[in-house]
Amino acid sequence: MASYPLVIKAVEWVNGKVRWLDTSLLPHEEVYRESSSYEDVARAIENMEIRGAPAIGVAAALAVAATVYNAPTSDLNELRTLALRAIERLSRTRPTAYNLFWALDRMKRVVMASHSDGEGLRKAIVEEALRIYQEDIETNIKIGEIGEKLIEDGDTILTHCNAGALATSAFGTALAVIRVAWYKGKKIRVIATETRPVLQGARLTVWELKKEGIPVTLITDNMVGYVMYKGLVNKVIVGADRILMDGHVINKIGTYTIAIAAKRHNIPFYVAAPTSTFDPKSKINEVVIEERNPDEVRKVLGKVLITVADIPVLNPAFDITPPDLVSAIITEKGVVTPPYTENIRKILGTGI
Amino acid sequence: MASYPLVIKAVEWVNGKVRWLDTSLLPHEEVYRESSSYEDVARAIENMEIRGAPAIGVAAALAVAATVYNAPTSDLNELRTLALRAIERLSRTRPTAYNLFWALDRMKRVVMASHSDGEGLRKAIVEEALRIYQEDIETNIKIGEIGEKLIEDGDTILTHCNAGALATSAFGTALAVIRVAWYKGKKIRVIATETRPVLQGARLTVWELKKEGIPVTLITDNMVGYVMYKGLVNKVIVGADRILMDGHVINKIGTYTIAIAAKRHNIPFYVAAPTSTFDPKSKINEVVIEERNPDEVRKVLGKVLITVADIPVLNPAFDITPPDLVSAIITEKGVVTPPYTENIRKILGTGI
Repeated sequence: MASYPLVIKAVEWVNGKVRWLDTSLLPHEEVYRESSSYEDVARAIENMEIRGAPAIGVAAALAVAATVYNAPTSDLNELRTLALRAIERLSRTRPTAYNLFWALDRMKRVVMASHSDGEGLRKAIVEEALRIYQEDIETNIKIGEIGEKLIEDGDTILTHCNAGALATSAFGTALAVIRVAWYKGKKIRVIATETRPVLQGARLTVWELKKEGIPVTLITDNMVGYVMYKGLVNKVIVGADRILMDGHVINKIGTYTIAIAAKRHNIPFYVAAPTSTFDPKSKINEVVIEERNPDEVRKVLGKVLITVADIPVLNPAFDITPPDLVSAIITEKGVVTPPYTENIRKILGTGI
Repeated sequence: MASYPLVIKAVEWVNGKVRWLDTSLLPHEEVYRESSSYEDVARAIENMEIRGAPAIGVAAALAVAATVYNAPTSDLNELRTLALRAIERLSRTRPTAYNLFWALDRMKRVVMASHSDGEGLRKAIVEEALRIYQEDIETNIKIGEIGEKLIEDGDTILTHCNAGALATSAFGTALAVIRVAWYKGKKIRVIATETRPVLQGARLTVWELKKEGIPVTLITDNMVGYVMYKGLVNKVIVGADRILMDGHVINKIGTYTIAIAAKRHNIPFYVAAPTSTFDPKSKINEVVIEERNPDEVRKVLGKVLITVADIPVLNPAFDITPPDLVSAIITEKGVVTPPYTENIRKILGTGI
């Protein structure tokens, strides 16, 4: 595997603790936080200091590990109980991103396996969490290398929200594709949508691309049709919070609207996501779309009230893009194209 | 004509001066300003204290009238020169809204007509401006009464930006339709898009509908696809800044994206505008789309920087919706349906 600069590390394991970049303060402040408490990490996920489906999964796994690693006991049953309590709490942080449940399921399997003693359990838990972390980075680089082949020299790529280093432990998913294309010398440009209400595009995508010198232009979410009409966009690449087996893509609110506009303009609409994003069980009507605090819409960044104080609002954090709008899904195991019901099953069956 | 409450008067003629509600301060402050100087009014249009195509047209006409009304001379040629100077300055405020040029053309015809003396010119100019003002209100009520027939009891209507009382001298265009439906007792609800970057939906539409007790829910611009997917929208009604003879609609940035989404969901997409919005001459590639200050995107309401300070942005104030996405255009002369090239010409040929 080629090596690429990992300029930004959003979630890490440092001396037995979880260390994360508080993305809620970006781009104005670059503050790192550390904790060995699963409760702290759970709250950091809830208030979106840590956000992005892969990052949430990795952080949750590391939080379980840090909890057990630092527990003042070596009793097998006590450690197991503690780990299960951490898993339970972390699983209630946000309902939509599938990688969270995927990572916690992996942790739970290790917790419930038979272990010689408490130290054996402790070691196994930490190892599994670090494996999830390490795999995330390797997976993202593979997504980048596989997806890069879809990008042509001179392309302008529209992306939504932040599916970047700041949404993973490092390197990103949609932005991994952009990074690899850039580091291979393709002269690409990015258009980033600001992504109201929490402004991950304006605050995070712009910040991380600029940091690596990749040309990026910011637009408001409602300019998507305009830039496509003007011929300014060649490809769309977004991440995903959950992908169903029939190809429905659950991702940041606004993704669906972009996909509809891309279809009208015959612009390829790509989703880049690790296979840990695929939900093998849920049907579309079973997926919970998180409804967040109305003040995220009424105010900007919690600071400026932009409307009448008590006006009713909707604030779904995600929307659903049906398979007919998705040109391809870029995973670490390869590019999945329609028919999705057949091809997603195939790719999930293959080894890495 | 039935009478309706004119709760909000955005632009008026008061004692020889132009009086306007400074919409840039809404919804937090309700400040009215007055001036007899065309330069003051021109600046108020440029900085969007006065905004909305019909309001801009009326304000410009009244500004020409106030200038001549208060001029310390009765010399015919001096007054004519002054009026032409005012018209020239006002025509350079914003390039896209057609009603501005339509109103100033009407004023110019009066200025250039033969007059017995200076007082005759002065009287004719003031009368023409007041006629434009009065016609605007009557036109909007007619648009409301004609458009109301398209609305069903129980409809939820999505609107974008502000095509309300605050975009006209009073009563609005898209919101006139909503107002008449409401006052006739139809139980309708409104979904308002916030309309970044200048947030006319969040600041103005929400404020004016709430003031009249019409139920309104605020969403971010990127939730449009979501609310349609969820079946929460029955109709879309927007205003227009310029409509070409083939049915291309130039309106606030974001309109086109909404129209694409409405088409996918088979939701009627209506444009409500006075016939003064129709541009009888321009081709689509001749229309100038105003590009505004990049800091409108980088900051929210000039206050909070939401991204990296110097990042490149696009900031087109308008976009273009092609005729195939427009279900009908509601004017004071009737509802125009496709084929537009034929039917717009027909309706413009008829008397009011």
